[in-house]
Amino acid sequence: MPIIVQKYGGTSVGSVERIQAVADRVVAAREAGNDLVVVVSAMGRTTDELKAMAAEIAPVPDARELDMLLTAGERIAMSLLGIAINARGCKAASYTGSQAGIMTDTQHGQARIVEIRPKRILEALTGGNVVVLAGFQGLSLGQYEITTLGRGASDLTAVAMAAAIEADVCEIYTDVAGVYTTDPRLAPDARKMAAVSYDEMLELAAAGANVLQPRSVEYARRHGVRLHVRSSFDDEPGTWVQEVDDMEGVMISGVALDADEAKVTLERVPDRPGVAASVFKAIAEEAISIDMIVQNVSHEGATDLSFTAPREDIPRLQSVMDRVVKEVGADRYSVDDDIAKVSLVGAGMKTHPGVAADMFDCLAAQGVNIEMISTSPIRISCVVGKDDGERAIRAIHERFQLDEAGAAPDIVTG
Amino acid sequence: MPIIVQKYGGTSVGSVERIQAVADRVVAAREAGNDLVVVVSAMGRTTDELKAMAAEIAPVPDARELDMLLTAGERIAMSLLGIAINARGCKAASYTGSQAGIMTDTQHGQARIVEIRPKRILEALTGGNVVVLAGFQGLSLGQYEITTLGRGASDLTAVAMAAAIEADVCEIYTDVAGVYTTDPRLAPDARKMAAVSYDEMLELAAAGANVLQPRSVEYARRHGVRLHVRSSFDDEPGTWVQEVDDMEGVMISGVALDADEAKVTLERVPDRPGVAASVFKAIAEEAISIDMIVQNVSHEGATDLSFTAPREDIPRLQSVMDRVVKEVGADRYSVDDDIAKVSLVGAGMKTHPGVAADMFDCLAAQGVNIEMISTSPIRISCVVGKDDGERAIRAIHERFQLDEAGAAPDIVTG
Repeated sequence: MPIIVQKYGGTSVGSVERIQAVADRVVAAREAGNDLVVVVSAMGRTTDELKAMAAEIAPVPDARELDMLLTAGERIAMSLLGIAINARGCKAASYTGSQAGIMTDTQHGQARIVEIRPKRILEALTGGNVVVLAGFQGLSLGQYEITTLGRGASDLTAVAMAAAIEADVCEIYTDVAGVYTTDPRLAPDARKMAAVSYDEMLELAAAGANVLQPRSVEYARRHGVRLHVRSSFDDEPGTWVQEVDDMEGVMISGVALDADEAKVTLERVPDRPGVAASVFKAIAEEAISIDMIVQNVSHEGATDLSFTAPREDIPRLQSVMDRVVKEVGADRYSVDDDIAKVSLVGAGMKTHPGVAADMFDCLAAQGVNIEMISTSPIRISCVVGKDDGERAIRAIHERFQLDEAGAAPDIVTG
Repeated sequence: MPIIVQKYGGTSVGSVERIQAVADRVVAAREAGNDLVVVVSAMGRTTDELKAMAAEIAPVPDARELDMLLTAGERIAMSLLGIAINARGCKAASYTGSQAGIMTDTQHGQARIVEIRPKRILEALTGGNVVVLAGFQGLSLGQYEITTLGRGASDLTAVAMAAAIEADVCEIYTDVAGVYTTDPRLAPDARKMAAVSYDEMLELAAAGANVLQPRSVEYARRHGVRLHVRSSFDDEPGTWVQEVDDMEGVMISGVALDADEAKVTLERVPDRPGVAASVFKAIAEEAISIDMIVQNVSHEGATDLSFTAPREDIPRLQSVMDRVVKEVGADRYSVDDDIAKVSLVGAGMKTHPGVAADMFDCLAAQGVNIEMISTSPIRISCVVGKDDGERAIRAIHERFQLDEAGAAPDIVTG
């Protein structure tokens, strides 16, 4: 029997009515002859509400206890869905990350999956159950403490379980219809793509397209898990994320805006070997993900080092930076959270020179100043002023004619 | 170091402010040089709210999934308390029933504790932690499924853990100041007892004194766990529940009202051996606790069999009774939920004849009709009309002079 892993985000299970709708969809897929593992996030804003209660008690809640608290959110969502599926005469059983053998390291709040031990899940499937599985959580190897995998990590739970049980497909249900050439709220002519490669999706996700968590795309690519991103509100096909063979003629797949980052600049850092390493090692030890890193050329033996990081991590980052400034002998550091990051992604840009120049020209024509630039083989990102972000997206989307179907691979699969 | 188990009910942890107050109390007890295990219920009405959501999805929610859902309530309360204690610079770690080795049978919603494996809790104490423990829940032996122990069972969790780790005392914190001669809301001259024996407490609890769950009193008696019932809102000593040696001169300890039961009567049951057994076996299989059982003398080979049961179990009970009526060949059954149970409890009544007569006389003087009577060596219970219940309590409290301290043992211990 084919195995399908389905993942439903917080909005998709945000109310009792939504949970009933998801149960209908699950039962239909089961009756169509599939084995099903259904991964759920916490209902609606539950996680934020629990975090707020914790913050009311302590400004920096104990990390172990906070994980214990937050995992209650998925527990509520998954058992309610379990009840709803059973009520439809379809056997279902829900499992926590711990019960499902999602083994992680010990980094509370940002744990990494180190192993999946799916014995109990496979037994439940063999026993004729629809498995409902809590996203976002696991159990630390060795210590057996409850951990969480970081914001948006229910996608990762779904992909990792799909890989472990060799599911045929991992369906990511969300409140949008798929992956678009840009955010449809910013550009009304944004177009849903039929398919996108892992590499492009990874760049789009890292660039702020919130539809998929970057770590989950990386995991899917490494383990060859085919993803299908689609809406939980209708039955339309969404966007497949998979190895896309024929990229000929396709230059650009999408443009993304990330307005949730801040720019940190370490000023007048002594320009000697090992300085950057010690800066970013200190930050990594706090499990803060940083994004663009730009180092300018050196003047008089000192340079400026800038990077972007999630705005929500800035308070934690500041205590690291206070230490780092002294350790490396920099003058000072500054934080600018009035920025936006605009990224253009496309596998074809590897073989089409001039894309970057086109993009910079487009921004210049809009009078948008570029503060930082960083590139990968298939992505160009520019940091601009926050107020310029949305205008930049619309202009680039138009310049690269992303509303036209030919711009992206239009294969329908599955 | 002495070990104290403290248990806080839902009202005591009903808000962030209350959790902060409990944390203050816990830290003070820790700083006074005790090892501490703190058992918590779900905050306020959380359990009822979760049950209501489940009921909205399915009239009879799947029992396994419902247990998974309800256990989220204690998880939230315990981790918030863990955060609050840690924030005061006092090491604390919270544990679910499953993590704490509270092994139960497989009866979801009403599981019985079959074994405590406190290894992890003892290690946490040895490691210098205050242990915060989820009440009301466990893990089924053999199946390793999450179970709940039934309403009010956080008391049982506390007592069972206290027995397993040989705690010096189990303190039950609640929103009343201790155990009273009757409900102070019904009789303003009700008096807080300094101590009461396990036997009397058991009868009072079974008779409707909601301050302690009956199963937990039974467990405490069997394992010799000393209980101290006291208020979480002040520092006054409460009521000790323990072996009380000198009962000389003490006749009556309290009178209790239970308005949460209904009376079920099986009419014209054939009077032959085995009938009662098959009736109550069928009910027990549904894990419904019944209370008073009265069988009248037989006329023409048939008799009436009456018993009381919690009103909330009546819907489940009715489906059993529909079957039982046919199986035993009774005429029909009827349910009367317009009743109240009035109970008089006192270890001294064993050696003081005439107590029952006094009680019946007192009720007669009030014009209260008695519908059923049942007695134990230290208790007399009468079922009366619902409207007569409170008046009956006040009259009996006055008749037996329960407001006078001499009526109950006045030893202060601990």
